[in-house]
Amino acid sequence: MADFTFFTNPMSRGQIARWALHEAGADYDTVLVDWANKPESLFKANPLGKVPTLVHHHGDHDHVVTEAAAICHYIAETNPDAGLLPGAHEKADYFRYLFFAAGPVEQAVLSKAMGWEVPAERAMTSGFGTYDMAMDTLDKMLTGRNFVCGDRFTMADVYVGSQVDWGLQFGSIPERGTFTAYAERLRSRDGYKEAKAIDMALIAEAQNA
Amino acid sequence: MADFTFFTNPMSRGQIARWALHEAGADYDTVLVDWANKPESLFKANPLGKVPTLVHHHGDHDHVVTEAAAICHYIAETNPDAGLLPGAHEKADYFRYLFFAAGPVEQAVLSKAMGWEVPAERAMTSGFGTYDMAMDTLDKMLTGRNFVCGDRFTMADVYVGSQVDWGLQFGSIPERGTFTAYAERLRSRDGYKEAKAIDMALIAEAQNA
Repeated sequence: MADFTFFTNPMSRGQIARWALHEAGADYDTVLVDWANKPESLFKANPLGKVPTLVHHHGDHDHVVTEAAAICHYIAETNPDAGLLPGAHEKADYFRYLFFAAGPVEQAVLSKAMGWEVPAERAMTSGFGTYDMAMDTLDKMLTGRNFVCGDRFTMADVYVGSQVDWGLQFGSIPERGTFTAYAERLRSRDGYKEAKAIDMALIAEAQNA
Repeated sequence: MADFTFFTNPMSRGQIARWALHEAGADYDTVLVDWANKPESLFKANPLGKVPTLVHHHGDHDHVVTEAAAICHYIAETNPDAGLLPGAHEKADYFRYLFFAAGPVEQAVLSKAMGWEVPAERAMTSGFGTYDMAMDTLDKMLTGRNFVCGDRFTMADVYVGSQVDWGLQFGSIPERGTFTAYAERLRSRDGYKEAKAIDMALIAEAQNA
C-alpha cells in the first residue's frame, strides 16, 4: 500500500493537493470521486465526503487530512527530505502567507464570485477588509520576492500559488504584473507540470466518455 | 528587549494572540494600538497597520507575523519547550482543524454577520458550504474529544477555541453542547485567564478614560 490514499476529482481543489504530492515526491494511490456516486471508502475516511481528502497510512494509524492548505503543509511535514518546509528564518513568512491565502484571499475571491459587497464602514471588522484591500495586500506581499519565503520555493508556494494561478485563469484575481510573473514561475516547475498533466488527462477523459 | 513585540488592541483578535503568548510562556512587550492614532512603529513592522501584528526579534532578524492563526502556530514553533506543537500522530488533526477554523468557520461566521446567504445550488463550490453545514461539521469534528488533538491541549485549541469562545459570546456560533463544553474547558486554563485578565483590564481602563 502507498503511504497516502488521495481522494480527488480532477475538477476540484484536489489539483492543489496533487501538485503538493508531486513536489514532495510522495508515494500515493488515487481514488477518483464521481460527484454523483461517491465511493463508500471516502465516507469511511471523511463522513462529509469532501474532496480533496488525504489519508496518511502512518504505521498502525490512518490519519485523515482535509482543507487544501492543511493537506499541502501536512505533506511537507511528513516528507521532510523534500526540503519544502521552512527554515528557522522562513517560518514567519511561510505561515503568514499560508494563512493569509487560506483566510482573507479565499474570502475575498468568494465574495467577488457571489457578488457580496462589504460596506465601507465594516471593512475594518470583516477580516479580509474588502476585495480590493485583500488583492492590494497580496500584491504587496509578493512584490520584490520570487517565492513566499524569498528566493526559495517552499510548500507555501503550492497553496498561495494555486490561489493566484486559479484566480488568474478564472478571473477572480486581477491580472497584475506581480501575480502573472509569480504564476509563470510556478507553472515552469516539474512538479506542477506532472500534476497538471494527470488532472488535465482525467478531465479530457471524462469529457470524452 | 523581549523576544517578541506584540502590537494589539484589547478589542480585537489580538486577544487570541495574547492567549497564545501566555500558553507558551513567551517573553513579550506590548505596544497598544489606538485605532485613531496608530503608532509609527506598527506601520514600520506592517505597512497595513493591522492588529494583531507580532514581531519576533530572532538573532539579527526581525520577523513579522500577521493572521491570528499564523501567529498562534508561529509562537508554538518558536517556543517548542511549551509542548504546544503536535506530535507525529497529532499533526493531521492539528493542521486540519486549524485551517478549517481559519477558512470555512471564519467565512461562515462572517457571512452570517454580513447577512450573506449562499444559494443552495452553489453550496458545493462555496468553500464553506453554508453556515449550517460549517457549524455541523465543526460540531462533528469536536464531538467525542476534549481538544483538537484528542485528550491533549495544543496550540490549535487556542485558535479553534477562540473561534468557538468568541462565537458563543457574540452569537455567531450556535449554543450547542459540544461547543459550550469545549469553551468551558478552555476558559478554565491559566493561560486563558491570565491573558483575558490583561485585555479586560485594558478595556475597562479605556472605557473609564
